[in-house]
Amino acid sequence: MHDPSTTVSDLKKLVSDFIAQRDWQPFHDPKNLSASIAIEAAELMEHFQWLRSDQLDAVREDPKAMQEVREEVADIAAYLLSFATRMNIDIAAALEEKMQKNAEKYPAEKYRGKFK
Amino acid sequence: MHDPSTTVSDLKKLVSDFIAQRDWQPFHDPKNLSASIAIEAAELMEHFQWLRSDQLDAVREDPKAMQEVREEVADIAAYLLSFATRMNIDIAAALEEKMQKNAEKYPAEKYRGKFK
Amino acid sequence: MHDPSTTVSDLKKLVSDFIAQRDWQPFHDPKNLSASIAIEAAELMEHFQWLRSDQLDAVREDPKAMQEVREEVADIAAYLLSFATRMNIDIAAALEEKMQKNAEKYPAEKYRGKFK
Amino acid sequence: MHDPSTTVSDLKKLVSDFIAQRDWQPFHDPKNLSASIAIEAAELMEHFQWLRSDQLDAVREDPKAMQEVREEVADIAAYLLSFATRMNIDIAAALEEKMQKNAEKYPAEKYRGKFK
Repeated sequence: MHDPSTTVSDLKKLVSDFIAQRDWQPFHDPKNLSASIAIEAAELMEHFQWLRSDQLDAVREDPKAMQEVREEVADIAAYLLSFATRMNIDIAAALEEKMQKNAEKYPAEKYRGKFK
Repeated sequence: MHDPSTTVSDLKKLVSDFIAQRDWQPFHDPKNLSASIAIEAAELMEHFQWLRSDQLDAVREDPKAMQEVREEVADIAAYLLSFATRMNIDIAAALEEKMQKNAEKYPAEKYRGKFK
Repeated sequence: MHDPSTTVSDLKKLVSDFIAQRDWQPFHDPKNLSASIAIEAAELMEHFQWLRSDQLDAVREDPKAMQEVREEVADIAAYLLSFATRMNIDIAAALEEKMQKNAEKYPAEKYRGKFK
Repeated sequence: MHDPSTTVSDLKKLVSDFIAQRDWQPFHDPKNLSASIAIEAAELMEHFQWLRSDQLDAVREDPKAMQEVREEVADIAAYLLSFATRMNIDIAAALEEKMQKNAEKYPAEKYRGKFK
């Protein structure tokens, strides 16, 4: 599976099948899943915990760290997909809607070039 | 955009374009983005903060809460997609790889039926 | 040291001395410390991640889990104390002030007996 | 109340009394409290979310931001104290014990002067 050819529904199915095959649905309630996203996000943060903003390339250049970071990204995605499936949320639709809302709140012409 | 027909790359592009149009790339470094995922995950958790495990349907039945939950899901997705783009991570490939690793660690036959 | 006879300043000094003895002050900036509190809080959450609200006594009755929980509490306290020292915040005064604010927001007579 | 003259037990009592006066003990179970610490930690992180490591003084110099930061510190402390009370953990003893363990793991002579 690769990002250019994999739909969000493909990923949702991958995760749902994994959970169903182990009868783990009772554990994947929305409270536990929201905590699980936060737990995995914290593990991702750990890789940058003591680095200054000008030292962050160190992680990209360290293959072992990058493999761990990759797995944390997968873990966050897995729990987010499971949460969305459980709560019947269409992630693509929710994201498109939120970006439109953000576009009104933060007009591009107000910010472009401002921080250069 | 809807999950059955939207690829992960479509979502990555939606988010990257939004950031580029505002020249926000300097803020979207991996340290800030990992913290941002954690911040949005915490906001998602807030909706279940004081509910017992047997009270969680209350959120699904509350349209206002569900709209907020939907937006938090979008926010987490946006930062996760931005992080993956920035770190050059293929989310679908990373997730498939992690699920295979998990399948070996947690064999289905060991768990199926165990919690029924 | 024990809670009945240890002041907040005693704890602040314990942590500050530890950091100063290792020249770690440059790492203990407020951004890193706030992330560190969140990281340790997530590790504390992990102990309850998959437990339903009616299963939480399991942790108290498990000496190994309780020792780990104790250490997470210490880690959160350490980073919170370091943050307060760095930002020149008097924790006792801030807490007393916040509880008074909360008392006005959530009057006791409005809630007492309500959930019985 | 001020840090130099306030014991940890004084703070524990302040928080416990507040909760008892509102009959909120059933909500303050260890799962909810660990999530609450994480939620408040995320709110603290928000103040530094988009700042580079060399811009952090901006928060200290902004009285409104500092007041909010102060309240987040109080919120984290309140939930941590409530958690410790509920789980019968002596914070001062746990912290002293953990700092001794850390002192063995990270000997001062190995780090002192290393980052100068």
